[in-house]
Amino acid sequence: MPVTPEQQAEIDELRANPRPTLRAVSEGMEAHLYKAYDVLDHGFIRVIDYMGDDAAICQAARVSYGKGTKSVQNDEGLIRYLMRHWHSTPFEMCEIKLHVKLPVFVARQWIRHRTANVNEYSARYSILDREFYIPQPEQLAAQSVVNNQGRGSALTAAESARVLEILKGDAARTYDHYEEMISDEGKQGLARELARMNLPANIYTQWYWKVDLHNLFHFLRLRADAHAQYEIRVYAEAICKVVADWVPAAYGAFEDYRMGGGVLSARGLACLKRMLAGEELAQEESGMSKGEWREFQALLS
Amino acid sequence: MPVTPEQQAEIDELRANPRPTLRAVSEGMEAHLYKAYDVLDHGFIRVIDYMGDDAAICQAARVSYGKGTKSVQNDEGLIRYLMRHWHSTPFEMCEIKLHVKLPVFVARQWIRHRTANVNEYSARYSILDREFYIPQPEQLAAQSVVNNQGRGSALTAAESARVLEILKGDAARTYDHYEEMISDEGKQGLARELARMNLPANIYTQWYWKVDLHNLFHFLRLRADAHAQYEIRVYAEAICKVVADWVPAAYGAFEDYRMGGGVLSARGLACLKRMLAGEELAQEESGMSKGEWREFQALLS
Amino acid sequence: MPVTPEQQAEIDELRANPRPTLRAVSEGMEAHLYKAYDVLDHGFIRVIDYMGDDAAICQAARVSYGKGTKSVQNDEGLIRYLMRHWHSTPFEMCEIKLHVKLPVFVARQWIRHRTANVNEYSARYSILDREFYIPQPEQLAAQSVVNNQGRGSALTAAESARVLEILKGDAARTYDHYEEMISDEGKQGLARELARMNLPANIYTQWYWKVDLHNLFHFLRLRADAHAQYEIRVYAEAICKVVADWVPAAYGAFEDYRMGGGVLSARGLACLKRMLAGEELAQEESGMSKGEWREFQALLS
Amino acid sequence: MPVTPEQQAEIDELRANPRPTLRAVSEGMEAHLYKAYDVLDHGFIRVIDYMGDDAAICQAARVSYGKGTKSVQNDEGLIRYLMRHWHSTPFEMCEIKLHVKLPVFVARQWIRHRTANVNEYSARYSILDREFYIPQPEQLAAQSVVNNQGRGSALTAAESARVLEILKGDAARTYDHYEEMISDEGKQGLARELARMNLPANIYTQWYWKVDLHNLFHFLRLRADAHAQYEIRVYAEAICKVVADWVPAAYGAFEDYRMGGGVLSARGLACLKRMLAGEELAQEESGMSKGEWREFQALLS
Repeated sequence: MPVTPEQQAEIDELRANPRPTLRAVSEGMEAHLYKAYDVLDHGFIRVIDYMGDDAAICQAARVSYGKGTKSVQNDEGLIRYLMRHWHSTPFEMCEIKLHVKLPVFVARQWIRHRTANVNEYSARYSILDREFYIPQPEQLAAQSVVNNQGRGSALTAAESARVLEILKGDAARTYDHYEEMISDEGKQGLARELARMNLPANIYTQWYWKVDLHNLFHFLRLRADAHAQYEIRVYAEAICKVVADWVPAAYGAFEDYRMGGGVLSARGLACLKRMLAGEELAQEESGMSKGEWREFQALLS
Repeated sequence: MPVTPEQQAEIDELRANPRPTLRAVSEGMEAHLYKAYDVLDHGFIRVIDYMGDDAAICQAARVSYGKGTKSVQNDEGLIRYLMRHWHSTPFEMCEIKLHVKLPVFVARQWIRHRTANVNEYSARYSILDREFYIPQPEQLAAQSVVNNQGRGSALTAAESARVLEILKGDAARTYDHYEEMISDEGKQGLARELARMNLPANIYTQWYWKVDLHNLFHFLRLRADAHAQYEIRVYAEAICKVVADWVPAAYGAFEDYRMGGGVLSARGLACLKRMLAGEELAQEESGMSKGEWREFQALLS
Repeated sequence: MPVTPEQQAEIDELRANPRPTLRAVSEGMEAHLYKAYDVLDHGFIRVIDYMGDDAAICQAARVSYGKGTKSVQNDEGLIRYLMRHWHSTPFEMCEIKLHVKLPVFVARQWIRHRTANVNEYSARYSILDREFYIPQPEQLAAQSVVNNQGRGSALTAAESARVLEILKGDAARTYDHYEEMISDEGKQGLARELARMNLPANIYTQWYWKVDLHNLFHFLRLRADAHAQYEIRVYAEAICKVVADWVPAAYGAFEDYRMGGGVLSARGLACLKRMLAGEELAQEESGMSKGEWREFQALLS
Repeated sequence: MPVTPEQQAEIDELRANPRPTLRAVSEGMEAHLYKAYDVLDHGFIRVIDYMGDDAAICQAARVSYGKGTKSVQNDEGLIRYLMRHWHSTPFEMCEIKLHVKLPVFVARQWIRHRTANVNEYSARYSILDREFYIPQPEQLAAQSVVNNQGRGSALTAAESARVLEILKGDAARTYDHYEEMISDEGKQGLARELARMNLPANIYTQWYWKVDLHNLFHFLRLRADAHAQYEIRVYAEAICKVVADWVPAAYGAFEDYRMGGGVLSARGLACLKRMLAGEELAQEESGMSKGEWREFQALLS
């Protein structure tokens, strides 16, 4: 259970007290505020705050005095134009702040997105909880034979069981030792900043993460992609759901122009023109490597 | 007059319609939203949106589930601690969006602060207004003889008058020519992206500027400083006023630890210890250059 | 003439003194170092320094102890793979430092690329030279009727002549006034930080600009594009030439995957599949707006 | 032993082949290139590349055509002026690229410095080595009672021995399990991206890290500080040594103005003036909290 009853009570209290504001309000986003959406076995994402809405993107693009919107339809057309022509700065005018609980090895991938603000729970100052990510058996898979950095076919039941036994056992033992090392009952107790080094990368941490919409879209494009590691992809997918309610027009343009389409190289475009003219092409004639050709075929099929 | 009646009507409409939100609300800031505060002869700043308050800084620093605040006094102590020890990330959790109208030569200094988001009025797409910064006579001064990049003593009345005559005349003439070049009445008319090159750097532009509180404090420290050029300093001072109402505890800490104090070098600190022990020191014994020594003396006087 | 004989002598001296280094050396880039390549009427770009080469990209991607390269062919394949799969961080491991002389209105576009380092010539500290960008007559064009922010058909000879007369006249007059205002002969003279406000946006400035290869490619993709304003595009094109000699494999991949190809939206991709299956499509059936459809057609023709 | 004989051979080969360059060369830095300097039990730092030297800082500050330097003494004065007056952009014109081997929990602190470029060894793609940070007994200490996030008095010999036994035992066991899980001998073998989650935070990783001199100084100020965790401080100290040889004037200014001095708040400055006037002050009269007062006293003693 990612959120305790005490934490849930704090969340409920925050949701019980609307206050008047003159700022842009996204009704879709207000419904999500503070709620914890479960991800993996002990993780969650929850929206702590946001700035702006679809109209705010247009208002900034027009540098206008009043509301950005002339009509919802005009706004959607402008947003699609901005997205299509890589005018990224108006999307930077929206901002979201999330509270995320996630395994450390996921946090290590996530933090590589540098244009964001982060406050992480400090294991120098505080004691980490006994919570580890233990995968579902169906998520356990062998090293991929086509993608050198991904996973391939699912493990057999016997092999899965052995892996889970190891992960659970090592998590329990290393956490027992962590507690033992920092305990000052009848002894000095090791400093937290040192004891934490014994904890494996599937322990959960948490942070506040704040990012603008343009950089969030970049994060989502890479991390909600089918090639991203499953354990970070599920976080990206959970975020996609709240963003779709927050800025529906911008999210729709993002889906159309970034997530759902594809990029053609000059070589790929030249091949495509020949194919549209009726020619049948083989990889050898394409100028592409085998890997590129396979990806090109996949895009068009 | 920086804001037209039509623009004022748009602003009034936005201020007339509070809506409920579950987000953190800063009462002090709500009073400022959308209002245009005059700066220089045609410029202004106005707050378009904000995210967070003093309590949000603490909430992020504690990575907590509920409100950051245990008590207002605790929060202030924590904020002062964070500021004193250069824990900058919790201050990044607040964000402000401003609409600013400013002369181009001020915009060119301002934009050097890179960690911010900007949408500027496009002179490729739109026609600039006939508005130029013409200094007040008392702001006209000679090149400083001590600070190689600042201004020194005020100009005489005669010299001031001559300067103002030049500035007004050239502004009027270049703008007349700009209009003439882009006019397509009875001719083709020059493209806007070309015609704008004839306009001098005291013409006004405007932009939406969004920045987090940590980077805003950095901007304010440099630009509200007595050594900053007057024309950007008055913008920084206008922003200081709204920030003081938005996050009073953070702004108080900023004033105490960044604006009001000083930085000592290792040499300066060594001198200070000798002075506290009763020694009288001269520049020659300080290890400092004449310039450093003058600044050191100024700090302590 | 953008470079004076004295400046050329300084450049020649720098080129006359090779020194031994253990760092990665790009022969192609050494040939360009310090040389000023003319851009527009008074501008230039020149390479002041660089870090890394094609092999350094691979070395970083492999986090290896020795040289990155196993063979030039392997390196090229890896670089193409990295570019195709948006692995941008290895390209950040190369860096270039340029000295650029450019009109102020071009500098104002350029500076919007924030992930770079800049030192600009200070008009608070120094006096600007009497050098203004005056376009070639064939560059003078009317506002575009299809692209709201670009230029369209060329001006007539008579209209061109009138525009050039205005630009030259205002440049001369405002610079005369600038000199007169700052002159302290027989009077105080206005501070430089104030006098500069009278100078139009086609005056030349200069700066040192340092950027990593990933962010440089992003700049070049947007600014060497056919839709960029001519006056910045010629700078981007001049930079492309030196980059092609510096990191030939990376530049080749950039041309193939970024400059020469195209991006398909989900809607565009769906249309393409129907077209490859032999269907004839009209805009009304595409789900695209007229503008999108026009761009889609242009990509495939 | 952090570097194997094969790796040392690669390093030696790189150091054996100087090549001519026209770029700025720092003799002091050439002596360090590629060499691995030991840090902790299995870690190291080594310089892979650099751009610029002291003269390059001045050249950029002056936006000059030739060498930045007029004389070494002039350059040092300018560098000190720039550092004292927070003119940070010329320092951004120097760049360094390091190869670092470090424990994961140190990497997690390090990566919080966002304005840098990083390529980390991929545990999705490759298998991590069996190397763990095991502290020296004298580094094992209890939680500090004055600093809530640091370490205090050293552990007793018995307690130290028990901690080291735990750390060594858990490292060995979790790595055995890691190897067992990924092994595909007679079975499928778990994907590397999953198996890595069982490894504790004291396992070593490595990366290429590239940063400009201004941001490096910021890193060093925070991480070479006495309050930084020992395990990252030793890396910062090792980097300080090479930087001192690379840009001696800039490093000297950094030591004087950033590392060796101190910051006074407005309250601190007011107290200081009273003390210089002969007054004896107690904490209660200072306007400072007990913590602030303690730090103020420490600065002046």
